[in-house]
Amino acid sequence: MSEKATSNNRIQLPEPTLRRLPWYMAYVSTLRASEVENVSTTRIAEALNVDPSQIAKDLSFLGIRGKTRIGYQVAELEETLSNFLGFGRSHNAIMAGVGSLGAALIADSGLQRYGLNIVAGIDINPQIIGTKISGVEIFAPDALKELVERFKASIGVIAVPFESAQSVSDSLAAAGIKGIWNFTPSRIRVPEGIVIANTSIYSHLAVMYNRLSALGE
Amino acid sequence: MSEKATSNNRIQLPEPTLRRLPWYMAYVSTLRASEVENVSTTRIAEALNVDPSQIAKDLSFLGIRGKTRIGYQVAELEETLSNFLGFGRSHNAIMAGVGSLGAALIADSGLQRYGLNIVAGIDINPQIIGTKISGVEIFAPDALKELVERFKASIGVIAVPFESAQSVSDSLAAAGIKGIWNFTPSRIRVPEGIVIANTSIYSHLAVMYNRLSALGE
Repeated sequence: MSEKATSNNRIQLPEPTLRRLPWYMAYVSTLRASEVENVSTTRIAEALNVDPSQIAKDLSFLGIRGKTRIGYQVAELEETLSNFLGFGRSHNAIMAGVGSLGAALIADSGLQRYGLNIVAGIDINPQIIGTKISGVEIFAPDALKELVERFKASIGVIAVPFESAQSVSDSLAAAGIKGIWNFTPSRIRVPEGIVIANTSIYSHLAVMYNRLSALGE
Repeated sequence: MSEKATSNNRIQLPEPTLRRLPWYMAYVSTLRASEVENVSTTRIAEALNVDPSQIAKDLSFLGIRGKTRIGYQVAELEETLSNFLGFGRSHNAIMAGVGSLGAALIADSGLQRYGLNIVAGIDINPQIIGTKISGVEIFAPDALKELVERFKASIGVIAVPFESAQSVSDSLAAAGIKGIWNFTPSRIRVPEGIVIANTSIYSHLAVMYNRLSALGE
């Protein structure tokens, strides 16, 4: 991430808008694959179940405006979205905790497609230190600082057991990591200037189970 | 899911509360592992960075109240949370789409620990149909209805390419699936009576990239 970010990349968008942009991008990519040239907000709205005026507003943050009766140019829209979202650039990341979930995330080539390049893993388990998972080498935790420097890693992905999440996060921040993606259900505190994203997939399960129970399932 | 749900399981909680309950459970589990007997809201609040009065309110939905100066009994709190969240029961699930992410989710034993039992996978790729991933057999899509019946599966996990998400969701609903866990960035529409949970992990990445860009990273 040494290259200069483009200026519109620096705008801090409202989080709901940011979460919708990848939906637009995924949809627009399929349109381009089917060689569709233009697309209206109405069509995007129908495909994604989002209000058309909301779509126009979200896209205007990126400086893109559709043309009356024609809509947006698909190729241009895809490129702008991809650049804006940072999916087109490669962000080097360290996987902290290479158990079941950590190994699964390393193996998921989808992350690569979205710009996340996992360059190394760290784990305390001596049985996996020195081995490779999907080509990614696993190191002991004390190699962290050197790995961050060697790979110019900016992101740390945390998939350790709950009770170690805070201390691992502290180590990542101390080693120079700028963004932490936390897959544990732990609520991590980070120093100022460090970005945190929480993806507690098991919490989503709990929400679904509860809704199913309410249905009598 | 043929057994009767307990009565408090049927309460439909506010989603923010539901999302916090797994944090409490994860924390309380570590306390129990360290043989701590009682815990106060203040202590939970400190560990999880949540307001103590919010914690008391969330837990009161489950009919649990702490005792003055003692707090909550750890073992009781863990059991109530686990039962309420449905993590203690096994929910049979079909994985729809066994590419990189689908295979990773099948391999993640964490899901099993949280009550999600993936019993079979479906995929259109003839090269993997008939094979097993972490002991889970992969079938052709036309086996879906029979699989749902045979395994009494109530949940379908969608990890297919974006453009197939809606049609796969329709097939799952038609086959008798009651809950759909959507890992694609697609916005799926489901018939009434079907529960949907969206986990768009790549959207979280987009949010993080944007926040990092704002910092000049």
